Parts: sequence; structure tokens; C-alpha cells
Amino acid sequence: MNTAKDIHSVPSWIPPATRLVELHGDYGTTDFIMRRGGSLPKVVVAYESWGRLSQMHDNAVLVFTGLSPSAHACSSHEDPSPGWWEYMIGPGKPIDTDRFYVVCVNSLGSCFGTTGPSSINSKTGKRYCVDFPDLTIEDIAKAGHHAMQELGVDHLCAVVGASMGGMSSLAYALQYPDEVDYLVTISSACRSLPLAVAMRSIQREIVRCDPDWKDGLYEPSEEPKNGMTLARKIGLISYRAGEEWNQRFNRARVSPKFKGRSKFGIEFEVESYLDYNAHKFVDAFDANSYLYLSRAMDWFDVAEHGGSVNAGLAKIHSRKTLVIGVETDILFPVTQQEEIFNGIGKAGRNVEFIRLPSIKGHDSFLIDEENFAPAMSKFFSEIS
Amino acid sequence: MNTAKDIHSVPSWIPPATRLVELHGDYGTTDFIMRRGGSLPKVVVAYESWGRLSQMHDNAVLVFTGLSPSAHACSSHEDPSPGWWEYMIGPGKPIDTDRFYVVCVNSLGSCFGTTGPSSINSKTGKRYCVDFPDLTIEDIAKAGHHAMQELGVDHLCAVVGASMGGMSSLAYALQYPDEVDYLVTISSACRSLPLAVAMRSIQREIVRCDPDWKDGLYEPSEEPKNGMTLARKIGLISYRAGEEWNQRFNRARVSPKFKGRSKFGIEFEVESYLDYNAHKFVDAFDANSYLYLSRAMDWFDVAEHGGSVNAGLAKIHSRKTLVIGVETDILFPVTQQEEIFNGIGKAGRNVEFIRLPSIKGHDSFLIDEENFAPAMSKFFSEIS
Repeated sequence: MNTAKDIHSVPSWIPPATRLVELHGDYGTTDFIMRRGGSLPKVVVAYESWGRLSQMHDNAVLVFTGLSPSAHACSSHEDPSPGWWEYMIGPGKPIDTDRFYVVCVNSLGSCFGTTGPSSINSKTGKRYCVDFPDLTIEDIAKAGHHAMQELGVDHLCAVVGASMGGMSSLAYALQYPDEVDYLVTISSACRSLPLAVAMRSIQREIVRCDPDWKDGLYEPSEEPKNGMTLARKIGLISYRAGEEWNQRFNRARVSPKFKGRSKFGIEFEVESYLDYNAHKFVDAFDANSYLYLSRAMDWFDVAEHGGSVNAGLAKIHSRKTLVIGVETDILFPVTQQEEIFNGIGKAGRNVEFIRLPSIKGHDSFLIDEENFAPAMSKFFSEIS
Repeated sequence: MNTAKDIHSVPSWIPPATRLVELHGDYGTTDFIMRRGGSLPKVVVAYESWGRLSQMHDNAVLVFTGLSPSAHACSSHEDPSPGWWEYMIGPGKPIDTDRFYVVCVNSLGSCFGTTGPSSINSKTGKRYCVDFPDLTIEDIAKAGHHAMQELGVDHLCAVVGASMGGMSSLAYALQYPDEVDYLVTISSACRSLPLAVAMRSIQREIVRCDPDWKDGLYEPSEEPKNGMTLARKIGLISYRAGEEWNQRFNRARVSPKFKGRSKFGIEFEVESYLDYNAHKFVDAFDANSYLYLSRAMDWFDVAEHGGSVNAGLAKIHSRKTLVIGVETDILFPVTQQEEIFNGIGKAGRNVEFIRLPSIKGHDSFLIDEENFAPAMSKFFSEIS
């Protein structure tokens, strides 16, 4: 397998241990057909992997990410920097790389090595930008599926994802029901509800209102940073929960030396926190990727796979599904986790639901090791 | 009393039945001293009133508004258009104008007739814009208090407010504890928590990022409408609740003819709803007023009136206080209503708490007549 540098010029934001794999297309062509129309003449998927594929090729675990992370889910010899799910993946960890061959893919449409709006269209020699075709969660799942095939895996032991990654995992199990044994979906949903659509719609509008967006035709060095910063702040609000911030910030003020000179500048710690984290993100994410992935989440609807949500969920026939939800999640509320659990259960399948009291909202899976690690350890240790 | 037109040139957004009263200033001057420093050389307060002041001057009810409404809380012979609290105020209604002399004031710093950033500074002959001094909820309460004095009312029967208006009512009872008999605070708070500060901070930043804001020096005809529209959409999200939108919109799409041509334009009904309501608001609200009032809410803290929230609340000694909260409110969560109730109760005062199951979130008081009208009717009917 090649490193990123072998295949094409590497944007600075591809993590060092990330590798790229070029997919075979659909129907004997190299074209990757998109669900809502259009196709991509060539798709490359960026991934990282840990552990070794067994001789039987039966120990592969595919991890889909949320909207913003790269494939660097955990550290390795080649890239010792901590990954976005460092506590979850590794030797002796809940997803134990002494037992499993774990692959994390960067989602189709994203910007950390996988083909997306910032990639060069091989047919035109230009970046796709907003000529990238409509992107769906099902396309993301398909790109992950095809990438695993390129890596020699025709059948997954498990597919795992949280947030948008949970949707991608559901889409995987819906589209390839015979090719996966176990499914884990965390803080995800069968379909986005109006509050989540509204939260994301405003983020997209803010990016599009930034004059630097230039109808999507900005140069890579001239990203619409103002719009992206503001959008990310709204995202951050939707990812966390009030109670955590009450305990962490309460009404603390920033030191006067950090206070902006502007009359309405940063004054409370929570404002400073949002500002710091939004800027950190904006420096490493493509605006058009943000728009496409965000809209893909709005569109996702399990009901498209059978006429109703329950009919869709009935198509999933993994040996066991684990559904985890968090009580303080406002973006993918716990009632939506119950909907997945109930739907799969009604179809007579083996499904477990864990309702966690984390106070950290939607993003708990990233940070609440105390609650998530034991739940995931138990599930994976029971896989024989 | 004069009509708006008698006193100064009337911006088009002063409702027809609104009257203006010029305040006497503090310490024998005409200056209105502001809590955080600075002063206003002249303050005019816009108000509407319904019912008649009794001979004993003992039946006055002062209503403070939330961030965005004018003093037009209900209709009258002079202005038959429905007010923002039409179901609550009027003959035979919960706040019965056959019994009470009801006055609603436009808040200091707002833009519907009361002095605010869009007013002319009589010392310079120019609009204040961002030279308007720091505005606090206590200043808003004081302007209401002084306005009532000009109207011949030295002692209120009751002060009432919801949302920001609830904060203003609390500030009134804190600053003039001997001059009010009954207090009603709805979906309000002793102080803003980080999630509410964050929600408002982003709205302000979006307005300030609009190039048309021009550091606050825009011409009245060239308001930063893009920024205000986006900010209002975020506001609207924080004012409502997920469950209402699930029932109302679910995943309904707009008719293709209303769908924007843009790739990321309006597609879901909830997006269309936000767009319609945000534009309606923006055409009738001054951007600098929005910034000042928004920040005033962040700053408000009952603890400033005694060292702690409870010590502050102990200063309120109305005969009875009614606290109403809504379970689905994410901006001023019901736990904050309990905080008010508990604090006043601990001080040995008569206080009642009503926890409503409305699914319409923070804005329930505007629309959930079914739950709010009986609660308010009972309280006011018991005032002898």
C-alpha cells in the first residue's frame, strides 16, 4: 500500500500515518455512482489501520467518523500523536487492536485525503468545489465498503460509528446487510429532526454569506474563515450541553488582558472557549466539505430503505447491534437512539440499548471515557 | 399626555397607540445615570396603557417586554392590531383591564420609541450608535420606574415580565422593593448561564461580522440585514423546542417552487419557517439595540444585589411572587425558575412556582394560552 505522498500531492492536513486507496468503480467502470445522481470518475479513500487482518479475514472493524475528524482515530508507531478516539482503539482498549484489524476511513466528501469538493476532478483537471455531486450518507458508507474490499475484506466483523459516523454505520448495515456481523451506533439517528436540520442550515447559510466563500469557488488559501468560525461556534453549542458548561465556566470572565477591545468583544470564559476551538477547527477544514457533509446528514432517512423507519431497520440483520445514547444530547436526542433500538428489536434482532447519563451532550463519546469505555469493552469482548 | 408625533420625529416602527413620556433625571438633573457608568442627557420612554388608574393610584400593573417586542402588548380602540400578549391583557382577560391600569413600556435601549442607540443624543445632535453607554437590565427597570412616576404612579400593584422582561421585573423588585406589591416572573433567570451567553454571543458576533454593520455606524436605511437575519434565526432556535418542531414540521419539504436555486438553499419546511420569521423581524429592529439588549441579559446577575443570588432574592419583599417556568425551555431552563422560587421562599416570602409542560420552549408564554392564561388569571384574581 502506498502512503499519501505516493499517490498525489498531499495537502498539509493529511495526517502522517494516513494511507490512500483508490477504489474500483461501479458496474465494471472506474466511475463511482452517487445515490442522488451524478458520479465521480475516480475515488480515493484515506484511511488508517491498527492491528492485523486475520488469516480468515474475519476480524475487521470499520470505524466511520463524525463530520469533522480525519482517519487518525488513534496513535501508532508512525504517528504517535493522539487520535480523535485514542481511549477507544488500541492494544487492550475497548476496540482491542490485539484482536481486531481496525480501519478508520475519512468520509467521502471530507478533506483529509478522501475525494471531496476540494479534490481535483480528473476529468476537468480542476477542483470540484460546488460541482461535486450531491453527497449522501449512503455514498459515504459505500466508499467505506469499497475501500474495505480493496483492503481484502469482503465481510466485516463490525461497523462502528458515532454521530454522522453512526448514520454511516446504519447506512452500511442497510446497504450490505449480509456483509457485517456486528453494528454499533452511538448518538446517531435514523433521520435528522427539524432542530438538527435548523442548527446545520444556519451554519451553512453563515458560510455561504461570507463574501470569501465566492459561491464555493474560493481558492484553497482564501477560505471563508469568518463564516466557518461562526458556523463552527454554533456547531460547538449543539455538540455540548448546558450542565457541563455550568460546571466548567459558570459566569467566569476572561482576564482583562484577553478581553477584546471591541465593545461587544469576548468577556465570558465560555465565549473565549468557543472562539479558541472554532479557530482551531477552521484552520483545518474545507468549507465546501463542511457544506456537503452537513447537508448529507439532513437528507439521511432510514425510511428511504423500506418505506418507513421500522421497515428500513428490519433490513438490518447483524448478529447483534449496540445502540448508545446520551441523555443530554440536544442534536441527536436519546429518543432517537430508542427509535433505532425499538425498530431493530421489533424485527426480532438481537439489540442492546445503553442510555448514558453523561453531562457532556452529543460529543460525550469523544470525552466521556468513564462511561463509554466499559460499555464498548463489554460489547467487543463478547464477540467470539 | 402627548402622542409620539408631538414629541419628536417618529420612526415608522413606533406603533400608532404608543405614547412617549420624558423622564426627570437623577439627582435633580435631567441626566439619567447608567449603572455601569456614563449617563444619558435625556430619556424618553415609549409606552401603551389600558384600563384606568384608580383614584387611590393602587391598581397599576407594569409589564416589561422580552428583547424584541414594542410596547404594543395588546390592541386598543386607537390601535386595533393584535399586540404581542393579546390573550393576556384586556377586559376580562388574565390581566384584567377592567380592574387594573396596565402599562407596557418599551425597554430602554430598544428602538420602538424609547431612547436607545438609534436615538439622537441631544448633546451632540447625532445618533448614539455605539456611543450609547453600557446598558444593564437594572437601567431598563429604572427607566420603567421613572416612567411610572411621570404617569403618577409611585407604587405598583404588580410588575410582570417574561424572558428579558422577567429579568427587568426582578431588577425592579430588587431596586424598588417598597414600591411594588406583587411580582410575576416568567421563563426568566437570576443570571444567564453559559449556554445562553454563548447563544447570544454568537448572534452578536454575526451582526458585527456583517460589513454593513460598519462598526455600529451604519445609516438607519442601511442596516446590517444579512447579519441580523442570521442572528435572529439562531435566536429563534433558542426560543423554541425540538418537540414542537417535530410535530409541526417533522421532515416536510417546501414546494419545489419555493426552493432556492442555490445548491444549499431552503429545502425543509423548518428552514423556510426560520427564514420567513427572521426576515420579518429584521425589517423592524435596530441592530445596535439588539447588541445592547442582548449583552444586558448576559450581564444581569441577582448576586450583584447582595453578594449571592439568595442574598439578592432576599431583598425582594413583594406580598406574593409568581414564578412560571417551562420544562422545554433550553435558554432559561426550568431549574433557573426553581432557583428564583427557592431563593424567595428561603427568605420567608410568599412565592408560588408553576412548572408548565408546554412543548413550545422558551417562547411558550407568547403562544401557549391554554397553560398560561389560567395560571395568570388565578394569580391576578386573588389580588384584593
